[in-house]
Amino acid sequence: MKGAILYGPRDVRFEEREDPKIVEPTDAIIRIAATCVCGSDLWSYRGINRTVEPTPFGHEYCGIVEEVGRAVRSIKPGQFVIGSFFASDNTCPHCRAGYQTSCQHRELVGGAQAEFLRVALADGTLVATPELPPDGLIPSLLTLSDVMGTGWFAADVADVKPGKTVVVVGDGAVGLLATLSARQMGADRIIAMSRNSSRQALAREFGATDIVTERGEAGVARIRELTNDIGADAVLECVGTQESMQQAIGSTRPGGSVGYVGVPHGVELDGQKLFFAHVRLHGGPAPVRRYLPDLIDLAWNGKINPGKVFDLTLPLEQVAEGYRAMDERRAIKTLLRP
Amino acid sequence: MKGAILYGPRDVRFEEREDPKIVEPTDAIIRIAATCVCGSDLWSYRGINRTVEPTPFGHEYCGIVEEVGRAVRSIKPGQFVIGSFFASDNTCPHCRAGYQTSCQHRELVGGAQAEFLRVALADGTLVATPELPPDGLIPSLLTLSDVMGTGWFAADVADVKPGKTVVVVGDGAVGLLATLSARQMGADRIIAMSRNSSRQALAREFGATDIVTERGEAGVARIRELTNDIGADAVLECVGTQESMQQAIGSTRPGGSVGYVGVPHGVELDGQKLFFAHVRLHGGPAPVRRYLPDLIDLAWNGKINPGKVFDLTLPLEQVAEGYRAMDERRAIKTLLRP
Repeated sequence: MKGAILYGPRDVRFEEREDPKIVEPTDAIIRIAATCVCGSDLWSYRGINRTVEPTPFGHEYCGIVEEVGRAVRSIKPGQFVIGSFFASDNTCPHCRAGYQTSCQHRELVGGAQAEFLRVALADGTLVATPELPPDGLIPSLLTLSDVMGTGWFAADVADVKPGKTVVVVGDGAVGLLATLSARQMGADRIIAMSRNSSRQALAREFGATDIVTERGEAGVARIRELTNDIGADAVLECVGTQESMQQAIGSTRPGGSVGYVGVPHGVELDGQKLFFAHVRLHGGPAPVRRYLPDLIDLAWNGKINPGKVFDLTLPLEQVAEGYRAMDERRAIKTLLRP
Repeated sequence: MKGAILYGPRDVRFEEREDPKIVEPTDAIIRIAATCVCGSDLWSYRGINRTVEPTPFGHEYCGIVEEVGRAVRSIKPGQFVIGSFFASDNTCPHCRAGYQTSCQHRELVGGAQAEFLRVALADGTLVATPELPPDGLIPSLLTLSDVMGTGWFAADVADVKPGKTVVVVGDGAVGLLATLSARQMGADRIIAMSRNSSRQALAREFGATDIVTERGEAGVARIRELTNDIGADAVLECVGTQESMQQAIGSTRPGGSVGYVGVPHGVELDGQKLFFAHVRLHGGPAPVRRYLPDLIDLAWNGKINPGKVFDLTLPLEQVAEGYRAMDERRAIKTLLRP
C-alpha cells in the first residue's frame, strides 16, 4: 500500500509502505475512508519537533474494519469505525475515569495517512457507527477522531455551561470546533480571537457572538473591556505557545477556568502569577474516546456539523500539498481521501 | 497601643504604635482577642520577601468590635468577629463568585499582631459569632481567619469527596488543617507527607490514615506504590516550593486535582509536563470569607477543633519568640494573646 512519510522539515512523501498486519490478538486493521492533517503535526512538519528517522505520518482516521485479531470481541469486520489517536484498553483505572489518553496501556496511533491502518486495543479504542454512513457524513465523523473531541474536551474541562461567557484563543480547526462545542454546551457569549476573515466567518457560523482581533496584552485588555473588567468564565486555549497561554490566563476571571488543549511548546508558567490569577487550569491530550459515543450521536443526527472545518479536500497522494496549504495557512484543515 | 513591627530579616519588635482610627466610613476597629503567626509571614521574616521599611506585622485576627464607621450596617460594636486577611466588599462580581480574595476593592489587612486593628470594608469582611464565645473556643475561631480556611480551600478546589484518596503535601499548620478538611469532606484515605513525629501525630488526630516520610521523587514513588500506580484523586499542596509543587503534580492521577495554597516562591511549571500529567490545577489566596459562616458553625458546635494546631501560646509582647519558634520549627503555630 501507499502512505505518507515524514522525512524531515517540510519533507512529506507519499510512498510505498508495507501493508499493516495484525501483530497482537487485540489489533484491528482498518481500510481508511478518510484521514486528515492535524495542527499538532505541524510542529514536526516545521522541524520544531525533530524527526529522527522517516516516520509514517497522520493520526486521525475513520474507515471500514478489514480484519480483527482473535481476541477482539466487540469490533467486527465490515463495521465503520472511528478511533482516537491514542489506542486505549478502556478498562484500566485511568480509562474508567475518562482519561483514555492516559491509559496505562496506551499506544500512540501513527501512519494513518495511508490506505490501511493497524489499530491496537481495538475493542477499547474504536467505536462503530450505527450503520455505514453516507459519504457526506464522513468528514464530520472523521473530526471525532481528534480535532472535534479536542475542542469538546477544552470546553468540557473549562466547565462551559448555559449562561457563561467563553473566550476561544486560537482560530485553527481545534479553536473553531471548541467554539462549536461551547455553543452546543449552551454558552451565552462566545468570543473568538481571530484576525483571519474566513476563520472569523466560520467561527460565527459555529456560534461565536464576538470576534476579537487583538492579541497578547492588547487581546487581554479587549476581553476585560468586553466583560466589564471581570474576565471570562471559561477560556479555551487551542494554540500552545507562551503568548496564547498567558493570553488565556489573563482573560479568565478569578475562579474561572482555562481549558488548554494546544500541545505546549516552550511554555513556562510562573507559579506566583498563576496563584494570584486564581484560575482553574486543566487540559492535556484530549480523551476523545470518552466523547466518541455522544459525538457520533450528535453528528449522525445532524445536531453538529464539524466537518465544515475541512476547507480543502485532496486525494491522499497529494498529502504533501495538504501540509503545505496548512503550513502556509491557506487551508484551515485538509481532508485526505485514499 | 503596642504591636509587632518587622524591621528586617529575623528582626520583629514589639513597639508603641499609633492607635488605629476609622479612616473610611466602612471601617471597623477591633480589639484583638487573639492573633497568631502565619507560615506565609516566614517568607518575609526570613528575608526571602524583602522588607523595605518597618512594617506592622500579622494578618490573622479575631476580637470584639470597638467602633464602626457611619456606613457600616451589619457589624456592631460589642460583637465578636472574625475576618479574612483580605478585606473585601462581598458584593462585587468576584466576591459573588466566591473569590473574595480577588475582590475588586480588596485591601490587604496588616498589623493584626497588636491590641487594636482597623479592618476596611467591615460589612463585607467580618462575620460575627452567634454570641460571645467561651475562651476555650477562641483558638479555633482564630484559625478561621486564614489557616483553617486556607486548608479548607485546598481541599475544596481539589474536589475532595467521600471515597476519595487524598495526599497532603506539607505538614505545617495549613497542611494539618487541610488534612482535617479532607476528613470533614469525607475522604476515604488521607496520606500526610511528614517526617516530624509530633506533626505526624497531629495529622493522624486530624484524620490522616497514612504517613509518608519520603520527599521529592522518592515521595512520588511512594504515593504511586500506595495507590497501585494510579496516583491520588486529590493532592493538597501546602508549601509553595518547586519541589513541593512537582511532588504534588507527580502524585496526582490523570484527571485528578491539585489544590495549591502554599504561596509559590520560585515555582516555574513546565507547560508540556503539566499537559501530559493531565491534572487539574487550582489554588491561590484562599477566599476564607466564603467559608466563614459554615466554618464558624462547625467550630461553634464542636464538629471541628482546628485550634489544636496551636502548640505554643505566648503573650503578644513575646511575639519575637513566637516567630523564632516557628522559624526553627520548634512550634507548629504560635498563638498570641494581647
